[in-house]
Amino acid sequence: MLRVGVIGARGYTGAELVRLLCKHPDVELTYLTSESQQGISISAIYPSLRGHIDLACEAFDVETACAKADLFFYALPAGEAMKSAGALLAAGKRAIDLGADFRLKDPERYRQWYKGEPAPAELVSAAVYGLPELYRGQLREARLVANPGCYPTSAILGFAPLLAKGWIDPASIIIDAKSGVSGAGGRSTMKPEYSFPHINDNFRAYGLVTHQHTPEIEQEFARLSGVNAPVQFTPHLVPMTRGILMTGYASLAREADTPGLLAEYEAFYADAPFVQVLPEGTLPETKYVVASNQCHIGVRVDPRTRRVIVVCAIDNLMRGAAGQAVQNMNVMCGFPERHGLDLPALYP
Amino acid sequence: MLRVGVIGARGYTGAELVRLLCKHPDVELTYLTSESQQGISISAIYPSLRGHIDLACEAFDVETACAKADLFFYALPAGEAMKSAGALLAAGKRAIDLGADFRLKDPERYRQWYKGEPAPAELVSAAVYGLPELYRGQLREARLVANPGCYPTSAILGFAPLLAKGWIDPASIIIDAKSGVSGAGGRSTMKPEYSFPHINDNFRAYGLVTHQHTPEIEQEFARLSGVNAPVQFTPHLVPMTRGILMTGYASLAREADTPGLLAEYEAFYADAPFVQVLPEGTLPETKYVVASNQCHIGVRVDPRTRRVIVVCAIDNLMRGAAGQAVQNMNVMCGFPERHGLDLPALYP
Amino acid sequence: MLRVGVIGARGYTGAELVRLLCKHPDVELTYLTSESQQGISISAIYPSLRGHIDLACEAFDVETACAKADLFFYALPAGEAMKSAGALLAAGKRAIDLGADFRLKDPERYRQWYKGEPAPAELVSAAVYGLPELYRGQLREARLVANPGCYPTSAILGFAPLLAKGWIDPASIIIDAKSGVSGAGGRSTMKPEYSFPHINDNFRAYGLVTHQHTPEIEQEFARLSGVNAPVQFTPHLVPMTRGILMTGYASLAREADTPGLLAEYEAFYADAPFVQVLPEGTLPETKYVVASNQCHIGVRVDPRTRRVIVVCAIDNLMRGAAGQAVQNMNVMCGFPERHGLDLPALYP
Amino acid sequence: MLRVGVIGARGYTGAELVRLLCKHPDVELTYLTSESQQGISISAIYPSLRGHIDLACEAFDVETACAKADLFFYALPAGEAMKSAGALLAAGKRAIDLGADFRLKDPERYRQWYKGEPAPAELVSAAVYGLPELYRGQLREARLVANPGCYPTSAILGFAPLLAKGWIDPASIIIDAKSGVSGAGGRSTMKPEYSFPHINDNFRAYGLVTHQHTPEIEQEFARLSGVNAPVQFTPHLVPMTRGILMTGYASLAREADTPGLLAEYEAFYADAPFVQVLPEGTLPETKYVVASNQCHIGVRVDPRTRRVIVVCAIDNLMRGAAGQAVQNMNVMCGFPERHGLDLPALYP
Repeated sequence: MLRVGVIGARGYTGAELVRLLCKHPDVELTYLTSESQQGISISAIYPSLRGHIDLACEAFDVETACAKADLFFYALPAGEAMKSAGALLAAGKRAIDLGADFRLKDPERYRQWYKGEPAPAELVSAAVYGLPELYRGQLREARLVANPGCYPTSAILGFAPLLAKGWIDPASIIIDAKSGVSGAGGRSTMKPEYSFPHINDNFRAYGLVTHQHTPEIEQEFARLSGVNAPVQFTPHLVPMTRGILMTGYASLAREADTPGLLAEYEAFYADAPFVQVLPEGTLPETKYVVASNQCHIGVRVDPRTRRVIVVCAIDNLMRGAAGQAVQNMNVMCGFPERHGLDLPALYP
Repeated sequence: MLRVGVIGARGYTGAELVRLLCKHPDVELTYLTSESQQGISISAIYPSLRGHIDLACEAFDVETACAKADLFFYALPAGEAMKSAGALLAAGKRAIDLGADFRLKDPERYRQWYKGEPAPAELVSAAVYGLPELYRGQLREARLVANPGCYPTSAILGFAPLLAKGWIDPASIIIDAKSGVSGAGGRSTMKPEYSFPHINDNFRAYGLVTHQHTPEIEQEFARLSGVNAPVQFTPHLVPMTRGILMTGYASLAREADTPGLLAEYEAFYADAPFVQVLPEGTLPETKYVVASNQCHIGVRVDPRTRRVIVVCAIDNLMRGAAGQAVQNMNVMCGFPERHGLDLPALYP
Repeated sequence: MLRVGVIGARGYTGAELVRLLCKHPDVELTYLTSESQQGISISAIYPSLRGHIDLACEAFDVETACAKADLFFYALPAGEAMKSAGALLAAGKRAIDLGADFRLKDPERYRQWYKGEPAPAELVSAAVYGLPELYRGQLREARLVANPGCYPTSAILGFAPLLAKGWIDPASIIIDAKSGVSGAGGRSTMKPEYSFPHINDNFRAYGLVTHQHTPEIEQEFARLSGVNAPVQFTPHLVPMTRGILMTGYASLAREADTPGLLAEYEAFYADAPFVQVLPEGTLPETKYVVASNQCHIGVRVDPRTRRVIVVCAIDNLMRGAAGQAVQNMNVMCGFPERHGLDLPALYP
Repeated sequence: MLRVGVIGARGYTGAELVRLLCKHPDVELTYLTSESQQGISISAIYPSLRGHIDLACEAFDVETACAKADLFFYALPAGEAMKSAGALLAAGKRAIDLGADFRLKDPERYRQWYKGEPAPAELVSAAVYGLPELYRGQLREARLVANPGCYPTSAILGFAPLLAKGWIDPASIIIDAKSGVSGAGGRSTMKPEYSFPHINDNFRAYGLVTHQHTPEIEQEFARLSGVNAPVQFTPHLVPMTRGILMTGYASLAREADTPGLLAEYEAFYADAPFVQVLPEGTLPETKYVVASNQCHIGVRVDPRTRRVIVVCAIDNLMRGAAGQAVQNMNVMCGFPERHGLDLPALYP
């Protein structure tokens, strides 16, 4: 049994990690941190965990961490993991950062979009981008993983087969994404604009032309296509708790039809246990992936406009955060990729 | 045109007052206060008001208030209105307090349930409890009105005909009430337990055996029945924005059947423009009163248990707060009782 | 007082018309039809209307209709209004069709997208497209109005200033629209995919590349720009009752920045009582327009991609259907344009 | 591996059984029936099951059933299981009925409340009421199990410790219960009153004084207390998908305080893996049990009214239906009671 720790157990992402890890057959959850909840059991904070785990949160401390666990999940705001990840690695530990610290390879782009200092270059270059469908080989050897953002996960899984084979013009891509509110994190939900009366029965766009997931999407699109191009990315807030639906548009670079592209996707994801390419008659809905690590993808060619439309659904806390982090751990540690994640979505 | 002001325009209740008053045919809204939003137009805070009213909030000040308006609505937390209402009255102004400061006639009960000092006795005794169906006569002469709490409004309108005529045992009454989240006020909704991810798809009870609306219900029940008796009151939080449904239980004090009691209700509320007694085949639903000042009431006798069940639906921000305050103003000022409130509920 | 009738009062659009018309100062609602609810009062079907209107539904019949009212609203599925509108006009009556029968000027496009026979050519050519901001002059003389679809209303109001002045490339336009569920109509909501457990906490796209509002948008975009171009239109279903948010993308045809384009919008809509152009710091949210006839518009230029993003919010049952129909009636009949519609949105 | 079948796989309860059983370590799901979906794979009906199970539904047939599986779950409307359960038992099979056919021991009460003919007496008397906390011993030998209703599960678990020890007056019990909409079943949700626009942001009571779960609650309360007494039971519909919160009221029969009663509950449920008695500072919320088989219970004594208030939360599709059925199967078959159910609730 691998001993694992969650640094930042109190937020939604941390709580989701605890929910998954406390039932994972190959690990033992031995270390939880929360600066604001020191000494309080995680099952007192989240009564949903009563009867499953009774472990108190403590303040983060590198030495204690190293004594108590061997692999760590960071579930902290941007800028935090970079402060201590080096020390954990130096002690021979492994780490998966669910934040943004190690995702962008170009320090300039980090400064520009995150308005802060990037992580040390040696950590960034050691970090493997944790999208198993694209980087499974490197992840097997990784000691530090940059777990992808929730929106980028949906966008990259949705467009990877098209970009990798040159089906579309990279400069034409528009990502219109819609997320449930838990994507904003436990902290943000204390702001009035995340209160129930404001969000309920309301729909809005936010972060137009400035959202920090934009350069992450552009980086991975460029790696896939070999072309640097700006991506139009617009996120929206849906009055629901979990789930992301990405609707992506791109102009075709050559003749294509829906069945042909679906076959491309089937081939591309043939070995992926957590991607489902839906048949032509079915479109993804977030409810069919919620509480699971699955990514559902639908594709349509519009012959009138010569565009392809890609629709992709994930659970933002699972495939978009904690679930994918556990999947990455499974790959890093040689556990079966489905372990701890082999559950159908919760419907209805 | 009567010049009116809203003291505390920023909260949900204040915003609802502004929404109603800016279209009321007999008044002009001339004064808005908000300590945190000084100098900012109410339509910049609430874009829903763009094109309807463009009046800036200012800090509350008795002198300015008296210069700018003649009737005031207090939409502030408990303990605030009592600080300045005396000065407004002394200047010949009238006031309607949507908070709890003047509701309880017994200062001991105020201390006990609100854990604070009650309002000056002369203000409390001058204040008329603003439930127009019970106090219409006194309201015509009132200079200070204690606008009822949202839960008490639903409980008192629901049980008044039974208590006034001795149909039920007052000691047997149980009020199981359910409210939408806007009842918690704009301020409370910044707490994590009012965030969308926590409230959405969740249902809970709160304030068991300690909710501050209990003594208010007991006071009015005692006035109606002539008997002092404790009332069991349990509020719950419903994942919806607006609306209260009260389900009340009481043991019958004498033989009764459903049609007979419905006839009693019809007679009791014959002159009330904002109470609808529903026929036997129909039960109240909050959606049929939301955005209106209506109170819908259903009644059933259970011959097996010899109890009567009363179901009552209101919009907590309308009949439970701002709408009823405008209705009170209409009665106080001799305006037609429906003015500014004559709108069907928003369905669906 | 103009006598008006609603043909198809039972559906959501019909009920919304009744809600508005029963309080409109210039009209009297004298005729309601519903084939399934003959003899039943509209306030028994919708208890929200109790105390406001007590008029029974009857089966539609041209002769009775002509005897009872002088202007009619059709709130029926596609293909129905075309059967009797000619007879009403011949009798000297006026009609506003909230369905699709008279919207498309080209009969071929109707056949292609609606898979049915178009309305008689003389009716189609007599019909004025009921978007008052574009056709106010013609509406003043109109005897038959084709009330726009909900999605087209948001798309056309959103893009009109850009198309009319050549700011964008018409062939580049992508409309990613999101609607509350009441847009599906009362009838559709009996299907399992509109049940609460399926919709709640769920988000999905539908009608990809085939939605019937596409040719309507294209027709009006072509009239504005002078260029025929296919439009990419994708609707989505949001777990909320009312509201549409349209996010539109287009490539700039010449240099532009956000303040400049906002000034264009302000000028274009200077005389429109029901359009609000939001300042740069504010984006539309559906909750700020629900229950009102307002259309809120936000605009941003993305210098990285040389695209403009337009965000537009309306209430699909108000500005997207019944509210706009009343606005059209006001223009047709010379009533003040705000009459019966002068209400702020319901927030929260 | 035990071969199991689900008769009626298409409804919400059936789908939930499939979701649980396809991952249960001790069983193999070998037989699914649906009259309306013959030949269609369950993962085509519910895309959430893609990648987990690919088994086609077939028409129910006793002979095929007996050939394909050894234990059956009935997830059918009342009156259906009684038609074939005898044949399955005669063939040596075991069955768990999630409907109402075998719950009421008194045939007269069945006729009275269900308006139909009761099941054959020998089946009723063979059936064990499937509440493991009360009937674990009998369940070990059971060949036919009557799985409790969702509301009765919450009421009985909530009041059992008080009734068993004579703490309360059985005639005083009032059950005010609130359920998410999935409790109405997949079939009912096609009615307009279960459509999203009607349910969303709406709250209502239903089935006043006539709900069919009343006699089931009364039967089990009588078994626990030894006293026959009518129970007041009122269900409500909450705008959420899953979850039941029961608020129960009873007059104390002897002196008691909250800590004392909590200790009684702790003792009563000491061996129950799926009941959590919450400490005094915490009240149950449905969100902390959703997607789990847990039952959360809170208890408060009100010294003012000499009543006890019990609050109990379950997931209606899990502990109130499919989860409890799997728990019953585990007990019947000697599997560990937690198998297939050992998951924390989904929060948020």
